[in-house]
Amino acid sequence: MKSHTEYHTFNTEKRREFINITDKVEAAIAKSGVKEGMALVSAMHITAGIYVNDAESGLIQDIDDWLQKLAPEGPDYRHHRTGETNGDAHLKSLLVHHQVIIPITGDKLDLGPWQQVYYAEFDGQRRKRVVIKIMGE
Amino acid sequence: MKSHTEYHTFNTEKRREFINITDKVEAAIAKSGVKEGMALVSAMHITAGIYVNDAESGLIQDIDDWLQKLAPEGPDYRHHRTGETNGDAHLKSLLVHHQVIIPITGDKLDLGPWQQVYYAEFDGQRRKRVVIKIMGE
Amino acid sequence: MKSHTEYHTFNTEKRREFINITDKVEAAIAKSGVKEGMALVSAMHITAGIYVNDAESGLIQDIDDWLQKLAPEGPDYRHHRTGETNGDAHLKSLLVHHQVIIPITGDKLDLGPWQQVYYAEFDGQRRKRVVIKIMGE
Repeated sequence: MKSHTEYHTFNTEKRREFINITDKVEAAIAKSGVKEGMALVSAMHITAGIYVNDAESGLIQDIDDWLQKLAPEGPDYRHHRTGETNGDAHLKSLLVHHQVIIPITGDKLDLGPWQQVYYAEFDGQRRKRVVIKIMGE
Repeated sequence: MKSHTEYHTFNTEKRREFINITDKVEAAIAKSGVKEGMALVSAMHITAGIYVNDAESGLIQDIDDWLQKLAPEGPDYRHHRTGETNGDAHLKSLLVHHQVIIPITGDKLDLGPWQQVYYAEFDGQRRKRVVIKIMGE
Repeated sequence: MKSHTEYHTFNTEKRREFINITDKVEAAIAKSGVKEGMALVSAMHITAGIYVNDAESGLIQDIDDWLQKLAPEGPDYRHHRTGETNGDAHLKSLLVHHQVIIPITGDKLDLGPWQQVYYAEFDGQRRKRVVIKIMGE
C-alpha cells in the first residue's frame, strides 16, 4: 500500500470564495504513484468546505446566493458571544461538507466529465489549509 | 491490497427519482473479494447524489418535497444563462452530496438494519453513471 | 494493509444531542496500529449523523436551531403514516450526513486545530450505534 499526504494553503481576497483545486488533486495523485485507490480532500477548518460540482461561474454565484439564503450572515448567533462573527460560515461548512473522497482508477481521478473539486471559503482573508491524502497501490 | 471498480448506468423515466442500489454495492463487494475495507459509491454527474437512508416510500416522497422546498426548481438561476434549466438539480446534489463511503466488515457492507444506499437523480431522462470503488483486503 | 473496526453505543437523555467523539476515534487509531491511512466514522442509523466542527457550546445550540428551522419537527410527514414520528430526524441526518472520513498521518487524526468529530443524535433516548473503521498501514 502506498500513501501520500500534502497540504495547501489558501488566503482569499474576499470573505467568501470558491476555488477550483482539481489540478492540485491530480498533481498529488501523480506524485503519489498510486494507480488504484482513493483521494481524500479535506478542509482543515470549521468555516470552509470541499465539494464536487461544475466550473460554471453563473452556477458558482447561484451556490453562493443559496448558501447565504439557507445559512445567512447575521448578528444573532449564540456563537458570537465568544467574540466571533462567523456563525454563518460554520453552518455553510456543515451544509456543503468539509471533505470529499474520490476514486482513483488507472492513475487518474475517476470523475465524470463535468465534475470539478472546489475549495469553498466561507470566512477567508487569512491563511487556511487543505489536506490531500492519497491511499492505494 | 485489492481493489475493484465498476460503473452502473441509470436512465430514469422521471426527472427526479430515487433508486435503491444497495444490492449493486453488495454484488460489487462479492466480486472484489475484499473482506475488510471500504466501498466508495459516487455519482459521476453534478446533478445527482448518493445517500444512505430508509427504503420507505412515504419518507422518499418527504425527501423529494423537502429538497424541492430548500432548492426549488425555477427560472431565476444565473446558471440558466448558459442555456441549462437545471440549477435546482446542482443545489440538490450539493445538499444530498454526490458520494458515500461505507465500511466493509467480514465481506459485507457494515450498515445498520435500516440503512440502504440510494442513487438520487435530480435531472434524469438521460443516461447517467455511478462508480463503485472497493478497496481493502 | 491493516484494518480495525469498533462499535460504540449511545443512549442519549434528550431526543436531540451532540456528543464529541474525537477521543474515541483517536483511541481506535491507537488500537489499530495504523500510522498512514484513513478513519471512517459512520452512524449506523438513519436518524443520526456524524460531522466535524467546533466544540463550542453556543455554536452547537446554533446548529440545533438551524437544523430545526431547515428540517422542522411536525406532524405532516408522509413517513408518519407508518406510525413513526421522526420524519424530521431523517432529513436532519441527510443534511448533516451520516459519515465522515478523516486522514491519519503519523499515527494521528490529521485535523485542523479546531476540528472535532461529533455524533449528532436526532431521535435518541434509545440505544444507537456508530462504527469506526480504520484502514492503512
